[in-house]
Amino acid sequence: MTNKFKIINDPVHGFISIPHEILFDVIEHPYFQRLRRISQTGLLNLIFPGATHTRFHHALGAMHLMFTALETLKLKGTQISKEEEKAAMLAILLHDIGHGPFSHALENMLMHDWHHEKLSLLLMNKMNEEFDGQLSMAIEMFKGNYERKFFNQLISSQLDVDRLDYLKRDSFYTGVVEGNVNTQRIISMMNVSEDELVIDAKGIYSIENFLTARMFMYWQVYYHKTSAIAEYLLVKILGRAKYLVSTGKVLPASENLSYFLHKNEFEKATEEDIQRFTELDDNDVIQAIKFWTKSEDVILCYLCTCVIQRQFPKTIISSKPFDSEFIQDKIAKTNLKFGVDIGSELVDQISRDLLPYNAEEQPIYLLQKNGGKITLDHSENQILSSFINQPNTKYILSFPREI
Amino acid sequence: MTNKFKIINDPVHGFISIPHEILFDVIEHPYFQRLRRISQTGLLNLIFPGATHTRFHHALGAMHLMFTALETLKLKGTQISKEEEKAAMLAILLHDIGHGPFSHALENMLMHDWHHEKLSLLLMNKMNEEFDGQLSMAIEMFKGNYERKFFNQLISSQLDVDRLDYLKRDSFYTGVVEGNVNTQRIISMMNVSEDELVIDAKGIYSIENFLTARMFMYWQVYYHKTSAIAEYLLVKILGRAKYLVSTGKVLPASENLSYFLHKNEFEKATEEDIQRFTELDDNDVIQAIKFWTKSEDVILCYLCTCVIQRQFPKTIISSKPFDSEFIQDKIAKTNLKFGVDIGSELVDQISRDLLPYNAEEQPIYLLQKNGGKITLDHSENQILSSFINQPNTKYILSFPREI
Amino acid sequence: MTNKFKIINDPVHGFISIPHEILFDVIEHPYFQRLRRISQTGLLNLIFPGATHTRFHHALGAMHLMFTALETLKLKGTQISKEEEKAAMLAILLHDIGHGPFSHALENMLMHDWHHEKLSLLLMNKMNEEFDGQLSMAIEMFKGNYERKFFNQLISSQLDVDRLDYLKRDSFYTGVVEGNVNTQRIISMMNVSEDELVIDAKGIYSIENFLTARMFMYWQVYYHKTSAIAEYLLVKILGRAKYLVSTGKVLPASENLSYFLHKNEFEKATEEDIQRFTELDDNDVIQAIKFWTKSEDVILCYLCTCVIQRQFPKTIISSKPFDSEFIQDKIAKTNLKFGVDIGSELVDQISRDLLPYNAEEQPIYLLQKNGGKITLDHSENQILSSFINQPNTKYILSFPREI
Amino acid sequence: MTNKFKIINDPVHGFISIPHEILFDVIEHPYFQRLRRISQTGLLNLIFPGATHTRFHHALGAMHLMFTALETLKLKGTQISKEEEKAAMLAILLHDIGHGPFSHALENMLMHDWHHEKLSLLLMNKMNEEFDGQLSMAIEMFKGNYERKFFNQLISSQLDVDRLDYLKRDSFYTGVVEGNVNTQRIISMMNVSEDELVIDAKGIYSIENFLTARMFMYWQVYYHKTSAIAEYLLVKILGRAKYLVSTGKVLPASENLSYFLHKNEFEKATEEDIQRFTELDDNDVIQAIKFWTKSEDVILCYLCTCVIQRQFPKTIISSKPFDSEFIQDKIAKTNLKFGVDIGSELVDQISRDLLPYNAEEQPIYLLQKNGGKITLDHSENQILSSFINQPNTKYILSFPREI
Repeated sequence: MTNKFKIINDPVHGFISIPHEILFDVIEHPYFQRLRRISQTGLLNLIFPGATHTRFHHALGAMHLMFTALETLKLKGTQISKEEEKAAMLAILLHDIGHGPFSHALENMLMHDWHHEKLSLLLMNKMNEEFDGQLSMAIEMFKGNYERKFFNQLISSQLDVDRLDYLKRDSFYTGVVEGNVNTQRIISMMNVSEDELVIDAKGIYSIENFLTARMFMYWQVYYHKTSAIAEYLLVKILGRAKYLVSTGKVLPASENLSYFLHKNEFEKATEEDIQRFTELDDNDVIQAIKFWTKSEDVILCYLCTCVIQRQFPKTIISSKPFDSEFIQDKIAKTNLKFGVDIGSELVDQISRDLLPYNAEEQPIYLLQKNGGKITLDHSENQILSSFINQPNTKYILSFPREI
Repeated sequence: MTNKFKIINDPVHGFISIPHEILFDVIEHPYFQRLRRISQTGLLNLIFPGATHTRFHHALGAMHLMFTALETLKLKGTQISKEEEKAAMLAILLHDIGHGPFSHALENMLMHDWHHEKLSLLLMNKMNEEFDGQLSMAIEMFKGNYERKFFNQLISSQLDVDRLDYLKRDSFYTGVVEGNVNTQRIISMMNVSEDELVIDAKGIYSIENFLTARMFMYWQVYYHKTSAIAEYLLVKILGRAKYLVSTGKVLPASENLSYFLHKNEFEKATEEDIQRFTELDDNDVIQAIKFWTKSEDVILCYLCTCVIQRQFPKTIISSKPFDSEFIQDKIAKTNLKFGVDIGSELVDQISRDLLPYNAEEQPIYLLQKNGGKITLDHSENQILSSFINQPNTKYILSFPREI
Repeated sequence: MTNKFKIINDPVHGFISIPHEILFDVIEHPYFQRLRRISQTGLLNLIFPGATHTRFHHALGAMHLMFTALETLKLKGTQISKEEEKAAMLAILLHDIGHGPFSHALENMLMHDWHHEKLSLLLMNKMNEEFDGQLSMAIEMFKGNYERKFFNQLISSQLDVDRLDYLKRDSFYTGVVEGNVNTQRIISMMNVSEDELVIDAKGIYSIENFLTARMFMYWQVYYHKTSAIAEYLLVKILGRAKYLVSTGKVLPASENLSYFLHKNEFEKATEEDIQRFTELDDNDVIQAIKFWTKSEDVILCYLCTCVIQRQFPKTIISSKPFDSEFIQDKIAKTNLKFGVDIGSELVDQISRDLLPYNAEEQPIYLLQKNGGKITLDHSENQILSSFINQPNTKYILSFPREI
Repeated sequence: MTNKFKIINDPVHGFISIPHEILFDVIEHPYFQRLRRISQTGLLNLIFPGATHTRFHHALGAMHLMFTALETLKLKGTQISKEEEKAAMLAILLHDIGHGPFSHALENMLMHDWHHEKLSLLLMNKMNEEFDGQLSMAIEMFKGNYERKFFNQLISSQLDVDRLDYLKRDSFYTGVVEGNVNTQRIISMMNVSEDELVIDAKGIYSIENFLTARMFMYWQVYYHKTSAIAEYLLVKILGRAKYLVSTGKVLPASENLSYFLHKNEFEKATEEDIQRFTELDDNDVIQAIKFWTKSEDVILCYLCTCVIQRQFPKTIISSKPFDSEFIQDKIAKTNLKFGVDIGSELVDQISRDLLPYNAEEQPIYLLQKNGGKITLDHSENQILSSFINQPNTKYILSFPREI
């Protein structure tokens, strides 16, 4: 007990306090400690070298924002019990517990068809047994089933504390200030009306600013053409490795990673699957990629070298799909360069799309002085909301350098 | 060429520009890219979870400060040639190139008796061959041999840009604001007198503030009792692993790490030593420690579990050495707890000491309005310098929890 | 000379250096020192209490950004002579020299039909005589007549350093972080093509972010309904005072302010006009308003009390003009409340409008990698520019409280 | 009621909430609104142009910190009633209510022998009548008489929220980052033991950092030689004006300021004294100084011009008193320059002294893990406290330029 830390330094939010015993215990659990070794933004650090932060820190940050949000709502008169407070903090603390290494990129590669939400729930249930049911209410909230809807919304919606933390944190660590989100201000404008999360009317510009900041983060950072390709390279590397393994090739890898390279059936996760999955982290993948830069397979070797030596393919971006002739030409030139017929493996077109504000599902509501509610885009004061409710798509073509 | 980035985002300094072609080329070199996988502050992130930044980013940051410092000196009238500018930027960019994984902790463990400076020089010389001698002047500066002394001082002294960057960066990422150093202000106060680095007299408080900030960083961060122990655990783990290997035990590890676990003779670094060393990074060590949490050796297993699951030993700190009776008692209790006679292996006393301002060797000089120079501690305006020129020592005792 | 400061502290930009002698001398001139007593944002501090910053500091800040911008352009290869650098810094330093107290609100009230730009030019010409013609090139730039157009554009355009400084500074001092502008980033993206100011293509999001930040500043700060009314009250107070004076009433005021209250003919500014104008500042106006809270004129007394005791009228905002019936009702109720027929004097409808990005006149150009130029809104990467090139208007109705 | 603001923007602390009705009403009171026109740091803005912030904002900021501190203490288990919370917030909100224009400099000049604390108490008592005794508990706390001592200590001690706010605020607005105080961190380390304010042991470095930051603020800002002289000029100006008035000279000034220039007897403050005092603010003084730059009295004219045109006397600083011969020489040269025998009026030696940490009276206590208390300087971990408990004195000599 005496060794338990109660305050954690966070350059983003200042200080994170841990007000309940059960939160400590969850943080000390090996499943949670593992998140220290899983980066929040995968290979983004190859483009934004400051982005080395982890899912561990993000989970703590989101828990901190949940605490702040609940304090604010209490000051405004919403009744919240100690049990609810604990449950909401636990739910957000554990919302990413099912993430594997390089989560977004690889989540379907390691355990086919297992999204991280599904895994998070599975792990939360396992932990709930260990903690004698103390996580039950948290799990209800995580599943979106808790009766007072605003708790579920704080955990998952267009304005949840998960987004608030990761946008602010990613903006902070990448140094892309255009994405800086004023979490304190947004939270101070939160309110509850009929057990639903709403925003005080005067907070409209903070919300519009949040939505545009998010838009900037996507196009400048997450969907930056090199970032998008770096992530895609990871998927290709694991795919290639699985393919080679399926043809009988031997690839060096840690025991746990090897297990997943060889296994393809995950309909029902076994105890061994779970055990091995919770021992995997970014180190296993990076070590393997380092080994594979020496692979005799030209494609695997090429892809791994791109990542380890940061010699990315060339990329171009467009608001329309690329011409198939143009793509064919790149493939032909790649074949020429490598002297093997691998152009179609090394030339890729991917696309990314974003809906800045989803006005249809779960719109954001403003609480007016008279107690009425209107959606963001219907406010007289709105200046951007009605412009940014359409999806936007960009296409990225990547191909080897110097072809 | 078109693919080369010219501006790098840095949350600490804002933006880092790369004004010379040769700097790009060095940054793209695999030796330098490797620094992306070597953390700046080792296991400190177990105590300060934000501290996940790398030597790669630090080297770029120090290069940026060098550029800013030289610009400032030029505006104040010091003649600096393009060649000198390039050399100074290269020298600082490469000053840490010889760091291995968990550098400070392990530098003597992997290659006995090779300090990172010695290795840095060796690698710089190797790179100089590849770059046709373009690094020669940088190497002179790095060795402290360049004729205009202020270049050497900007690279290594009590006020060098290395310190300025790492203190500010470590303060930023740990969130320990007491250590925040105003690099812009300090640099704006730099000047040159008779080819020596000096500080404009009116900058005295910025310097005193820098020295106290440094002192806070040491005692709050680097020499924090848990940080000190975490670092010490690493040393013990590698020591234990080398010992076990020497007795013929087989320990899983990457090929490169295995090589260094088995080799003990490094009088003259061979080509293979260099090659393997430059392929090692933090991942090799962390992967090995993960494997070794399953070792049958009780001691190795214990030490590795401490690190991976963040279950640190208990630590106490004192300004005097601990009583040997007190230590013996801890050893006895440890033996009791483990049922084996390993107390003397798991109870450790270490010490840390700091001299906040070294007034003897390379004192800091203030340039007065009349052109004269006085040392910091002799200025009429000093308020702290004369108090902080004595070394301070603290002792830390660590022993297993719950004994 | 020795007493001249060379570095000025600025919480917004860090430090402001003054690299040329002539800049000092201009800063020490009484015309310029007067700007210390003229607030940058008038009565905005009644709504945002931090906004107490002055035109003096803004002018220095803009000069600093000009220096930074020119340094950047030089690094990118644009030739700029020492004379041009000095002139550009002088021009921006003096661009607001003609501002009177509560400038924007009162500029037409004190000297009918004299905009501050006209007065700035007049004062710059006067100072140019004192400084033996050293300001001549600066005056050309200020007038937009200098042959190399980018200098004029840095002084006045949609991306000039004036806007960059005041948006960042006003955001900083009001605490409205939604308006925070990353001046360093924007300036680092500036370039020159055929002597015109352009933005490097990769800087597009920084520019779009700047344009939205500006939009937020206008609607959250400058055009905030209470801010708009506070400013309007000032105009009404001076108007009422002039009217009362014209009917022979005696109003206490400083000698200089009295002079302007009585004079109505400013076709040609006399030496006395200039002399007295350059001795006026915010203190003269605030002192007068304090006196006039005791005026027997009900209207003047009411208006002045609103300001001094911060008892603002009630305000409502709408995206459409208010119904004339609704307004008549407010007037009737005001008459009832005061027992005098003054409703039409105390009920006001004003409007404010903003064009976030003016794509027609002086559009912003992006410089593409191939050397071509396209306007912001025609870039494939744009995500907001095409939405925000239409003007937006809001209407504000104000009327006495508790009617 | 609807017009009352509930959230105030503060660039220093982010947002200030006003959680109780009575706090609004006090803020809206004309006595409190007057603080908007009284600068926090007097003429410091002539040296640090950003320092234009007001006592109004400081009082709100201190109230905010009080709220945060009480929330923290409640979370740590200290019982605090709603009444106590309100009282503590009111007490700190009103702690500076008795400040007159250019408070510290002029407090004894306007009403002889009335310190601002005495006036604050008098005004608080007057307001308490208006507010039907709702301020009674606040007044007890302000007087230091409340039974639970930690409330009094939060209002006035070496670690009170007044200091925390003004040091952070003044550091922020001057841009002197060496004085930046991490209020959040310090408050998070506060605790209560036997109804006394203490600091959790692990907060020691935050406190030592606070004490050194304060020391830097004093020597770099408040006691900066030019700042000290600017303040001293104000005192001399009012003194000279009072003297001239006493000899029958007529000096232009606002009615209220005139009243105080003529009156010398303030044994018992009359109703008129109070009324007029609460109408005075910085504007009255600055307007008068502007008028007096045209005075025929050479000394008054000289002093006022120094301030308005920022043509300060020359100043030198020393850690020892200046030689009387040296001073006599300066006086003689001044006489020569002015051609009148006024050297002794224009050459001044002043001194400033600071005790960084007062270990004798009201030392700061650390609360150890075992529940015991020790003073800061007796902690094993202290690194600075034992060095900075001695007073430091500096001497400043000022004399006219160019003599």
